[in-house]
Order: sequence, then structure tokens, then C-alpha cells
Amino acid sequence: MSYKIAIMGATGAVGREIIEVLSNRKFPVEELKLYASQRSAGKVMETPFGKITIEDADTADYSELDIAFFAISGSWSKANAKKATDAGCYVIDNSSAYRYDDNVPLVVPEINTHAIGDSKLIANPNCTTAIAAIPLYALHKEYGLEKVIISTYQATSGAGAAGMNELINETRNYLEDKEVYHQAFVHPIVFNTIPHIDSFQENDYTREEMKVVWETHKIFEEPDIPISCTCVRIPTLRVHGESIVVETEKPISPDEAKKLLASVEGVELKDDIENNVYPMPLTATHKYDVEVGRIRQNIVFGDHGLEFFVCGDQILKGAALNAVQIAEQL
Amino acid sequence: MSYKIAIMGATGAVGREIIEVLSNRKFPVEELKLYASQRSAGKVMETPFGKITIEDADTADYSELDIAFFAISGSWSKANAKKATDAGCYVIDNSSAYRYDDNVPLVVPEINTHAIGDSKLIANPNCTTAIAAIPLYALHKEYGLEKVIISTYQATSGAGAAGMNELINETRNYLEDKEVYHQAFVHPIVFNTIPHIDSFQENDYTREEMKVVWETHKIFEEPDIPISCTCVRIPTLRVHGESIVVETEKPISPDEAKKLLASVEGVELKDDIENNVYPMPLTATHKYDVEVGRIRQNIVFGDHGLEFFVCGDQILKGAALNAVQIAEQL
Repeated sequence: MSYKIAIMGATGAVGREIIEVLSNRKFPVEELKLYASQRSAGKVMETPFGKITIEDADTADYSELDIAFFAISGSWSKANAKKATDAGCYVIDNSSAYRYDDNVPLVVPEINTHAIGDSKLIANPNCTTAIAAIPLYALHKEYGLEKVIISTYQATSGAGAAGMNELINETRNYLEDKEVYHQAFVHPIVFNTIPHIDSFQENDYTREEMKVVWETHKIFEEPDIPISCTCVRIPTLRVHGESIVVETEKPISPDEAKKLLASVEGVELKDDIENNVYPMPLTATHKYDVEVGRIRQNIVFGDHGLEFFVCGDQILKGAALNAVQIAEQL
Repeated sequence: MSYKIAIMGATGAVGREIIEVLSNRKFPVEELKLYASQRSAGKVMETPFGKITIEDADTADYSELDIAFFAISGSWSKANAKKATDAGCYVIDNSSAYRYDDNVPLVVPEINTHAIGDSKLIANPNCTTAIAAIPLYALHKEYGLEKVIISTYQATSGAGAAGMNELINETRNYLEDKEVYHQAFVHPIVFNTIPHIDSFQENDYTREEMKVVWETHKIFEEPDIPISCTCVRIPTLRVHGESIVVETEKPISPDEAKKLLASVEGVELKDDIENNVYPMPLTATHKYDVEVGRIRQNIVFGDHGLEFFVCGDQILKGAALNAVQIAEQL
């Protein structure tokens, strides 16, 4: 059996990567339709599925489609998801529009495929959540998470192709002593770090930070695990790093944790400090698995504490790959 | 009264900055002598104190000096500190050689000037320690620190001028599609993050991470505060960022903490999220004060928890400024 697939937002960083992932994972595509804003309609895109003319996303006929990947914006998803599912099309939404809707499953396939049930609309988690969730869930099942404290090192790809282009172009300007502009980010990102991603909330955490809390609770079906997060944009291209400290209910040893994590689907254990092997954007870029390493007994929580570092390709596991993995489950 | 000052390692990033700080803070310099390796001896350096010919550090006559700043290497400090202090010269050592020696005071002037006593040899803390210590000590005095969890965003200046040059030059190579080399860092730092600074220890933390633990304990004279740290090198130039979560003995409110930190010497409160004001390398570069912001009630530790972000110029507060501030106390 094969499927009629549409990508809404095909010209964006995530949209383009979904096409690649569909091809690389040999997803049974009967027909691939590409949609974007009216501005891009009519352009022809080279893909592993041949040359495809981009159509205006607002004109899509969902009754002719089996699965649509939504990768445009939250407001666009809000305006179009019901139309699509009413027409019988599955929607995998990459935006945050439906993630916190109790009626919409939020899915990391390695963790909670069962949550899909008979829903036609499935939400894809935030990249920072998805990358941390895979090792965290494995630890939670085995040891019980009592506390989770995260600090992130987030790449410019989180702001899409525009973010990556801004880093490249403005770094070039900086090195040529030209003026450095910024538009994709609140401040210049060149040789800078910005501890501010998405809008500030009532509790002075950013929405990006709270997404990790809300979404991890929903995906794990464990609303009471205390989780906190500081999200920081740094001048890297497409891999998010996360420094994670956990306290566990049962005692935990780094050796046991390494053995466990080495066996987890979606994790690549990169923990060979004698040979300077640990997670890095340099090695995690374009990789489907999340790199996990620097695993050690956390000093603060002692034999109930673990500290580690993860790196995941924000566009892949953080978005496109996870979306295609959801489609594979439908 | 004015003093005969020597800088051992005057050509390095820290040495050069010590000269600037002495000048900017109008330190009473009677005579400034500059020393470096034999290789640099004979070169003439332009300084705010006039043109000075660099001499071979191994030939210094300490009996003619009042204060020597050591900024060459740990092994060089080990080999020369006793000779200098025996000759009656104060030594302010920027290396880690004596930091963990019970007989040598380790000093952040805003915190523990009293520790200097009558010691002729004073150790300057690691940059990551010094930057976090100032806000942490203020919180500790008022609320009592029960737990401290840190993740760092460390600039290439931590590896000296060579580190900063490698970032600039190799970024240029990357953007010109040329091969990217690395020598100052274990892996290429261009658009990368490296969760590995200094050597790995028995407990799988790095020495850089343990320095924060050991030195904070010594400076605060509180060896029992549980502290953990993940140190990460990122592609920035000269400001270290630190994401910090603390649990306190007494209940703590973000508003009270802001009021307290705003009054602390050495701290610049940068916490106006409505106007996108928070600590960043972009604003903390070349600044004497440590920027502190993103102050909020930590979710995990509730009303006994605080989470915040700091940025400090690694070469200034992390090294040169702190060293000169020590000299001002002598």
C-alpha cells in the first residue's frame, strides 16, 4: 500500500527535510504534493521524487490526500487542520497549535505511539522536547524521574532557514568588518548567546522553556514530574545540545545508565571520554539518532543523580524525522 | 605610594588585559616591567605606560619588584613562585598551580579579601568560578545555598589569544569552503559546541567542572555545599555564560533576589525581560561587572529555588580584573 502525501510549507527548512526523510526511509509514497505560500506557488522544486510544482497551500483539496504534514505556522495550522481531517486526511502538525489540546495526541514514536488512537490530527513536539525525551523516558521507566533540570544550547535552525542564513551571512559581515544586522533573532547571534527563545510567560520562563515542561508531561503521561529548563540560542547551525541533570527515585549508576541508553531506539551512545568522544553538533548533524554522552553520577543528587549531555539534529529528530516516524505508525 | 609591578606572560590575552586594567583603574604604578618567554624577549610593546621592552621571564630579579602577576602557565608558576615570594615580592598567580593549596589564599576581592592575611602568594580563581561566585555568594549569605547546579557557555578566550584566533580564522575558512583546522581545541569549534574543557577526572567530570566545585568551596569557606557543573565550550569570543539553578535553605523570591543582586558590588543586574534585556556576551564584553538576569523562581525547587543566567568577561572578571583587584588590596 502506498499513500498520497502533501507537505504544507515545502520550501521551509523543515518541509525540505521531510521530503528527504520520506525518501531516505523509503516511505511508500504514491504521490507527493508540495504546498507553500501563494508567493512560492508555481515554482518547481527538484526532489528525490522528481520535479514537483509548488501549489498555493490555501487551495489544497484534502479529500485527495492521505497524509498532510503541516510545517507552515501555528496560525495556519489552526485555520486549516479541521478542514483537512474532516476530508479524511491525516494531519501531522509541526506547529505548537494543538500540542496542548487534550483531544490531540502529542507523539514521539519511540515513546507513545499508543496515544495516536483513532485521531486524524497528531501534533509533533517541540524540537527541544523531542531530543531530550528519548533518553529521559528510558531513564524514567527504569529509575523514576523525581527532578529534571535542563539547560539548552540551541542552534539557529530553530528559527528555520532564515535563522541559519542570518548566522552565516552576519558572521561573514562581522569578519569583513561590515555592519551586523539581525531580523530572525531579537539580538545579533554572531559570536553571541541569547537566553531568550519565544515569548516570556507569567512565571518569567519563556514559552520555549515551558514547552519542554508541558510537552514532556503530556508525552510521558506524567504531569507531576518537576522539570525546569533554561533555553539559550547559540551560534551553531542545526543541532540542539542539552545539559541535563536528573534525580531519580531508585538509585542509579552511570554504568547501568550507559548500558540502558545504549539499547534505546533513537539513541546513539557517544560516551568514550578517553578518546574524546561525546555528543557534539559536529557529529550529530544530519543524524537521525540523538547522541547521548558525558554520563556521570551527579554530585548534587549523589547515588540518585545522573548528569549527561545530549545533541540532536533539530530539523530531523526535532521536527522532520519525528513527523515521518509518526506517519509510519498510521 | 606607588609600586614596581611585573607581568609575567605579558604577551598573552590575560597579560595584555592586566596592563589595560592597571591603567584604567589608575593603579599606582611606579614602574611596569613586562616578561614573557625567551622567544618574545627583546620585542617592544606599546602600553598606556609607554613603550616597554619585553624581557625573558626566567631572568626576572624579584628583589626589585613589589608585585608580580603570573599569567604564563601552571608549571611555570610552580617553578617560580617561591623564588619571587622569598625575595619579598607579592605574587598574584592566575594559574591553577596553587589554588587548591591550603596554605595559599584563593581570592575574589568582593568576597574574601580577609583570606589574604599576610600571604605573599595569592591565587586567582578559574574564570568560571569567579564569574558565578559573586552572585552566588550574595545569595548564600542571605538565603543559604543548599544545592547549586551550573551549565556553562564558555568562550574561546578561555584558551587564550590562540583560542580566539582559532575561532576567527577557522570560521573564515569554513565560510570560504576551505579546510577547517583545530589546535587550540580538541575538536573544531566553528559552529560547534564541545562539552569538554581541561582533563577528565576519576569521577568523569572534567577538571574545569571540578574547579568550580573545589574553588567555590574554598572561597566561600563552605566545603559542604553540593555543587555540580557541566562545562561547554561554544563559538563565542570572550564572555562566559552560566545557567544556574540553586536551592536555598530559606524561602527565596525572585523580586527579593533581584533587589539583593542589584546592590551587590561587581554585579550589574540585567533583568528587564519586557525590553529584551538580559545577560549576553554582546553586552558583557569588556565590562568589569558580571551581568545577572533571567531571575525567576525555579520550578523544581519551588519557593526555595531560584534560576538565573550570568555573563562575565572571561579575561576581565575571570582573570585580569580579579588579579588587579587583589593587588589593590595588598
